[in-house]
Amino acid sequence: MITVLCGGVGAARMLDALRLVVVPGEITGIVNTGDDLVMHGLRICPDLDTITYTLAGLNNDETGWGLQGETWRVMAELEALRGESWFKLGDRDLATHLYRTTRLAQGASLVEVTAELCERLGVDVRLLPATNDPIATTFDTVDHGRLSFQEYFVRHHHDVVVRAVSIEGAASAHPAPGVVEAIESAERIVISPSNPLISVAPILAVPGVRDALAARRRDVVAVSPLIGGRALKGPADRLLIELGHEPTPGGIAALYREVAAVLVIDTADAELAAGVIEQGLECRVTGTLMSDPAQAAGLAQVVLDG
Amino acid sequence: MITVLCGGVGAARMLDALRLVVVPGEITGIVNTGDDLVMHGLRICPDLDTITYTLAGLNNDETGWGLQGETWRVMAELEALRGESWFKLGDRDLATHLYRTTRLAQGASLVEVTAELCERLGVDVRLLPATNDPIATTFDTVDHGRLSFQEYFVRHHHDVVVRAVSIEGAASAHPAPGVVEAIESAERIVISPSNPLISVAPILAVPGVRDALAARRRDVVAVSPLIGGRALKGPADRLLIELGHEPTPGGIAALYREVAAVLVIDTADAELAAGVIEQGLECRVTGTLMSDPAQAAGLAQVVLDG
Repeated sequence: MITVLCGGVGAARMLDALRLVVVPGEITGIVNTGDDLVMHGLRICPDLDTITYTLAGLNNDETGWGLQGETWRVMAELEALRGESWFKLGDRDLATHLYRTTRLAQGASLVEVTAELCERLGVDVRLLPATNDPIATTFDTVDHGRLSFQEYFVRHHHDVVVRAVSIEGAASAHPAPGVVEAIESAERIVISPSNPLISVAPILAVPGVRDALAARRRDVVAVSPLIGGRALKGPADRLLIELGHEPTPGGIAALYREVAAVLVIDTADAELAAGVIEQGLECRVTGTLMSDPAQAAGLAQVVLDG
Repeated sequence: MITVLCGGVGAARMLDALRLVVVPGEITGIVNTGDDLVMHGLRICPDLDTITYTLAGLNNDETGWGLQGETWRVMAELEALRGESWFKLGDRDLATHLYRTTRLAQGASLVEVTAELCERLGVDVRLLPATNDPIATTFDTVDHGRLSFQEYFVRHHHDVVVRAVSIEGAASAHPAPGVVEAIESAERIVISPSNPLISVAPILAVPGVRDALAARRRDVVAVSPLIGGRALKGPADRLLIELGHEPTPGGIAALYREVAAVLVIDTADAELAAGVIEQGLECRVTGTLMSDPAQAAGLAQVVLDG
């Protein structure tokens, strides 16, 4: 059994890669919910949706986000009404949010709704939200005050100066049923190449998860989200600097030193391996881009081997 | 100034007819909200929407409900997810519900949101929900227990035996700002040819509205929703019988005797005018079908003349 801590796009690729070398039914993804939002009354879980759509083979490879064959009728009409339309919701995607919102209102837990959506869409990996409880990754910014995750990420295109990140609600949240067990019982635990500060941190902030991971540190392999000091997607590099961390393999290793024994870094960063070892982690060097199935499978195998 | 108490389709036609003989800006519609529902987290106001769409010229004349050029992408996907899809929401219609839900969550009142939607869609009649407070028309049925309005009307196609109707929340609701004033200041007050028991009754059940109307009784004209003992649309005839009323002009007059001085009935029912007069109302006989503009304008003029 393999358990993977997951943000959005990077995690979706990591899970997709692991499916190439492990029976999908043996993979559990524990997914960040700190980006979740209620918009227009609808409960939206961007990371869960990105992963679900990707594993279902429904992701739009051309745009890099959203669904294949998506249409935008509702958004176009909402814009005509001069409604709040900065967070784009495709017609097909909306059905997911309608489904989830109704099931939650009926009393189903987010774990149950996630399992239902995976079953409906034919996802063969088990996905668990980190928690059923509401948590919210929140940004204290210099020019715009406090921003929710999607205000920061989508509305402001993460082009703002961040002073601090906090995970609202985390202190009183509980790990979703199965989360701690999935960490305790896995042969290998993987931290995806997701943003450590805003995608992985909210998972670790749920009481009990960090401790469970630390107890399995010897079997935890993290994959760096940086290549040549830059994040492939998103603001990881900029945020690391603004919040006082190094945008290097060593900086990532410092963040994970208590919970991971190995950091996988890209071949482009091979010369920086010493920074990882300095933090007390072993370092593996391989292609981390997952740009083709062969490279993806190669990374998955390195991660599995630990 | 003309004030019109409104349900859905019949009221939309009545308002549309009145526009033919009165300056639209002098017409106020007070609209039933007892059919409102929260579905998939979205606040839906079927009567307000039917009227808004009709007055905006966006209603679908072919189907008799919904919007012109509507598409059903979200519903099709929701069905594919095996989600709750018995209440059909078109893509275009959904934008209205997203808009309303967001504005209400931002603290706008239903009156404000309704005014915004009317402005956006170019509706020239003033529409007021009867109340900003939540009220819910609820059915006590023989075979299905308690049903919400839309469960009764849409899910069960109003094909169930009803023991009683109650307007939940009405006792503690307040008339929306402008509602009582619109009744007090109008030259003519019209009760639309809507279902008296489930479309007009929820408006009258809001404390203060019935009294305001009774105080203006001399200037209140009601239009019967029945032609030849049958409702043009919906379950008015059946409900009248099940709840112990007569499905006749006299039966309608009995329901409105305290709040209206005149009942307009269709020429097909001319021989039943005596039943209206027996209840202490005057009776006007004219074509009430509003099937063409000439007939619609004719009815509007009869209503205006009182």
